[in-house]
Amino acid sequence: MMSIAILGGAGPQGGGLARRFAAAGISVLVGSRDPARARDTVAGWRAAGEPIDVADNASAVEQRDVVLLTVPFGSVDALLADLHARFRHGSLAIDVTVPLDFSGGRMSMLEVAAGSAAQHIRTRLPDHVRLAAAFKTIPAHLLADADAPLDCDEFVCGDSEASRSETVALVQRLPGLRAIDVGGLSRARFIEHVTALAVAINRTHKIRDARFTVVGIR
Amino acid sequence: MMSIAILGGAGPQGGGLARRFAAAGISVLVGSRDPARARDTVAGWRAAGEPIDVADNASAVEQRDVVLLTVPFGSVDALLADLHARFRHGSLAIDVTVPLDFSGGRMSMLEVAAGSAAQHIRTRLPDHVRLAAAFKTIPAHLLADADAPLDCDEFVCGDSEASRSETVALVQRLPGLRAIDVGGLSRARFIEHVTALAVAINRTHKIRDARFTVVGIR
Repeated sequence: MMSIAILGGAGPQGGGLARRFAAAGISVLVGSRDPARARDTVAGWRAAGEPIDVADNASAVEQRDVVLLTVPFGSVDALLADLHARFRHGSLAIDVTVPLDFSGGRMSMLEVAAGSAAQHIRTRLPDHVRLAAAFKTIPAHLLADADAPLDCDEFVCGDSEASRSETVALVQRLPGLRAIDVGGLSRARFIEHVTALAVAINRTHKIRDARFTVVGIR
Repeated sequence: MMSIAILGGAGPQGGGLARRFAAAGISVLVGSRDPARARDTVAGWRAAGEPIDVADNASAVEQRDVVLLTVPFGSVDALLADLHARFRHGSLAIDVTVPLDFSGGRMSMLEVAAGSAAQHIRTRLPDHVRLAAAFKTIPAHLLADADAPLDCDEFVCGDSEASRSETVALVQRLPGLRAIDVGGLSRARFIEHVTALAVAINRTHKIRDARFTVVGIR
């Protein structure tokens, strides 16, 4: 049985992923900085009988070879500083964050010196941990509505062919998603701007679910 | 009859747009810095009986209220300096450029101080000329293959509601395209990164025609 940890997995985006992966038959360990509260949240989902456990973030990282980072971008530095020595050797981290700022009601991209959130996170992870990016462009609240069809493509990039192919396989476990490998980690910058475009479309058209499919592939 | 000028309209991207707009019943005036050579190119298309005329860039701008800028981003400054006094009052310019760099075989986005090619062009146009952006994400060689179905969405942004709605109406004249208004001109930055993502997808998958549709709208 495939198994993953989801840090921030009791939040809206992480929670949607947790429930959907569990429903797809993957063993999910939700990592949280407040495991007691996360257990309450997860208990509400368990009605569906999904195999979701909860731990503090450090224990979650120690127990799984695949770790999704679904905390807000602004929390990543502190979290990864805490967890630096805890990752399993050769484990795969999957970055889901987008450096968007919504202060004052205006949406903008934060300038990240490394080029993108994913490249920034690469600098904060131990060298032995591999990194890919995925789930950056799918609306959190759509993920959280666990019965809503996703019905779109998700862009994957990563620091090696293996990081990408493992992440592509994971994404494709979720019904209604097609994973599109877009290459090396520097391409996270393009993916993160696609998220900003989705927000722009949502605001312009007063909708909530703008997402994308690629035409001309396969 | 609707009529437009296309500066750089004998090049691959401009030429594809010229032929497709002409086929859609729009009067097209191709602007070129080398009208004699452009006339030869256009003569090759005229077999199809499409109403395409040719002029030098300055005359083209003086004759039409809608002007597409399809020259490479690196040529825009010189061109707009030449044409500054020539635009018709209140005309609509449509920026099609993307600040991509392919030197050394590597693709990257050029940093544009204004935020995007479109915002840069805004600073080089007379105030009375309105500006929108469109056709940034559709592959040039697909446009140039005038019989190939386009079958995707095109993102439009612009400096006013009217600039955008006129541009949306123009985009929708081309069969197989749906125009998606994404809001103000600052959003060109997101659109231009989507073009980079399309190039990344093409390179990763050894294809040429990656383009996009939006799910969750209308």
